[in-house]
Amino acid sequence: MSEQSSRPFSRRAVITTVAATAGAAAGGALVVNARGDEAPRPSGPERRIEPFHGAHQAGIATPQQRHALFVAFDLEDTDPVSGDRLSSERLAGNFRRLMERWTAVAERLTQGRLPGPMPGAGPQVPPDTGIADGLEPSRLTVTFGLGPDLFERVGRTDARPHRLEPLPAFRGDGLEDAWSGGELLIQICGEDLQVISRAFRALRSRAPGLARLRWTQQGFLGGFGDATPRNLFGHKDGTVNPRPEAFDAVVWADAAEEPAWFSGGTYLVFRKIRMDLPKWDTVTARVQDETIGRRRDNGAPLSGGHEFSTPDFGKKGPDGKPLIPADSHLALVRDVPMLRRSYNYDYGFQPGGAQDDDHEHDDGHDHGDGMPAHDESAHAAFDSGVLFCAYVRDPGEFVRAQNALAGADRLNAFIRHTGSAVFAIPPGAAPGEPVAAKLFPRT
Amino acid sequence: MSEQSSRPFSRRAVITTVAATAGAAAGGALVVNARGDEAPRPSGPERRIEPFHGAHQAGIATPQQRHALFVAFDLEDTDPVSGDRLSSERLAGNFRRLMERWTAVAERLTQGRLPGPMPGAGPQVPPDTGIADGLEPSRLTVTFGLGPDLFERVGRTDARPHRLEPLPAFRGDGLEDAWSGGELLIQICGEDLQVISRAFRALRSRAPGLARLRWTQQGFLGGFGDATPRNLFGHKDGTVNPRPEAFDAVVWADAAEEPAWFSGGTYLVFRKIRMDLPKWDTVTARVQDETIGRRRDNGAPLSGGHEFSTPDFGKKGPDGKPLIPADSHLALVRDVPMLRRSYNYDYGFQPGGAQDDDHEHDDGHDHGDGMPAHDESAHAAFDSGVLFCAYVRDPGEFVRAQNALAGADRLNAFIRHTGSAVFAIPPGAAPGEPVAAKLFPRT
Repeated sequence: MSEQSSRPFSRRAVITTVAATAGAAAGGALVVNARGDEAPRPSGPERRIEPFHGAHQAGIATPQQRHALFVAFDLEDTDPVSGDRLSSERLAGNFRRLMERWTAVAERLTQGRLPGPMPGAGPQVPPDTGIADGLEPSRLTVTFGLGPDLFERVGRTDARPHRLEPLPAFRGDGLEDAWSGGELLIQICGEDLQVISRAFRALRSRAPGLARLRWTQQGFLGGFGDATPRNLFGHKDGTVNPRPEAFDAVVWADAAEEPAWFSGGTYLVFRKIRMDLPKWDTVTARVQDETIGRRRDNGAPLSGGHEFSTPDFGKKGPDGKPLIPADSHLALVRDVPMLRRSYNYDYGFQPGGAQDDDHEHDDGHDHGDGMPAHDESAHAAFDSGVLFCAYVRDPGEFVRAQNALAGADRLNAFIRHTGSAVFAIPPGAAPGEPVAAKLFPRT
Repeated sequence: MSEQSSRPFSRRAVITTVAATAGAAAGGALVVNARGDEAPRPSGPERRIEPFHGAHQAGIATPQQRHALFVAFDLEDTDPVSGDRLSSERLAGNFRRLMERWTAVAERLTQGRLPGPMPGAGPQVPPDTGIADGLEPSRLTVTFGLGPDLFERVGRTDARPHRLEPLPAFRGDGLEDAWSGGELLIQICGEDLQVISRAFRALRSRAPGLARLRWTQQGFLGGFGDATPRNLFGHKDGTVNPRPEAFDAVVWADAAEEPAWFSGGTYLVFRKIRMDLPKWDTVTARVQDETIGRRRDNGAPLSGGHEFSTPDFGKKGPDGKPLIPADSHLALVRDVPMLRRSYNYDYGFQPGGAQDDDHEHDDGHDHGDGMPAHDESAHAAFDSGVLFCAYVRDPGEFVRAQNALAGADRLNAFIRHTGSAVFAIPPGAAPGEPVAAKLFPRT
């Protein structure tokens, strides 16, 4: 328990603060949907409302919720009627309209209200799906991001954040278009999957004609409470996250260097990292721990101490070798300043591998292309791993770290990066103003 | 609130009872995994333990948890070394070994213990993945089922439950092999996705050489507490479920007619029903309600009253037509006795439709084959809907209902059945005995 005090970023403490603030702001009265016949309201995280407005968007410094949906869109290229290719002026107008609609929906839903009118729908069409009627917002947050290609598309290369560019190719990457890229991102997080599902439907139903879906990805975390969450390798993931007081130096954009509109913004590096779990599960505990550089049980570095002890990379064992192997993940990734807010994913198994050629419908998402063929059975055809999310003031920090890892990390025998994207995350919106408003064309 | 008393099946009441029982059985002391540095334990549903042993398997009468994973396996056909086709004696032995391993793991994990030794693994290989270290069982249940083909495979057609046969084809079915069938089922339910993920890995890691994965499907429910959950059409789903006191007549196998070993068993009818949400979301509230036969907001039948009012199918409106249309879902499905324990699913969007032909990797699960082509954009390429689960003493009841629906239900314009399976669910196991033990060959 004494170790608790040395934990740099206590989720529970922050949650309590936010909840208290939100409760005070709302005067204790939650505005909720039709629930005439509902039982007494639940207590706990379901009741909590995360603020929408502020200097930064929610969903970044927000204590991590248990579920996340990441959705990428591209602006529509062509006029839906004429089929003509749209000019950058038209695209800029569509971008503006989309952010106005999306911001309004996000603000309303995160605060426990209905999503508002549906543009273009007849008066008899319900403006909401109703699937979350009777549910609390459950710490719903909606966070918007802008991809590298967006700025040229809308004629605002002048306003492009200086560090926003596509990530370079890394050694060992096995990227697939189906999981990569995107001009617009929506990150939807919360404690209730159905509330997230409703938010997503409300947002995407306001996109047709303006933007089209590119990919969706779903992540989860166990209910670890105050403890650091574990990834699907069983290891604690996020131990060295910066303290909130370091976010100005590590997370939020550099005001001196970036365009003024981007003050309070950040960048999200998103990587879908597939884990070869059947292989991992058959190696020894020692191999597992030396691959990571930490003990699985308590998260302590192999040089000793507890989870939050500073690793001693020079400390040697009786064999004269470093206790933390120099090519372990911990040794290679050391001191990279980024706020990791990753989620586990498990997209399940679908037949479709070599031994399943007799299946009539080979439409499953078997990404068994690049993983080591250690297991001949269909058990290897799983797509599980981590949706690595790093919020950084400079994506170059991730690039440097990943270049170091890509060539040497022991973990590479067990993982493959199969999706990749990077987004500029605009600052938070003021009340009455859409996210990214300062990027819009003057009208 | 007065309506609350007429609710036939109160989730909260049952949860409380079960939790109290489990707490008493465990003497208040939960046995949990390595958690030396963990913070105080959470309260709430995470703490609750569902009993494993009993006359019936858990996960049926158990108050519904918020997450579910359904996994189908087939017995391995061939000897892993020689490649020879296995005899039914060998298959029976493999079936027995599998059920012994799986029952041991299920019993341990649901009760908050480690999964036990891993057959065939070296002593240094961790017997557990560790991904749920520090997490409570969170109402984990594991329920096993046996498909129609299993009994012949293991040479026990004599013991086959009398009502276990493949479902017939229904009009309008759009079934895909990738989501259908299976000789063995595991239904894993719980309040924590990571606990479910760990249970699944522990179970499947004990299958290679004995059985191979056929499909996995994941479902969720919002945190509706005592209220009836809503499906992705926004309607309450499960209103007319039988009261627990009716389960003997509706759910549990007919002792007079079934083989003795099956006493306490039941059948699961599993249907993956894809919903055309973009189409649903653009029709009027009246069309939606008349399709279902109920009001979306409070679940009341269109003949009036509240959610639990008895529908009056003869009651007519000013236009002389029944208030509940004769071809509404409610009117057609009336009085079919089954315990529905369905989950919503959202497998997300993957590019791969006609307009996405330029994608390099067209490996998404776009099941856009049979849905009405009302939306030209990629927004129609979503796979969302309901994993319909009905526990019944006679799958013939489902067949009768589905035959009535398949030809006439207004809902058919918005749904398509894309997966189908049926399983006999053996009775609960006694301590020290595997599930389905009475089916095993005498040795």
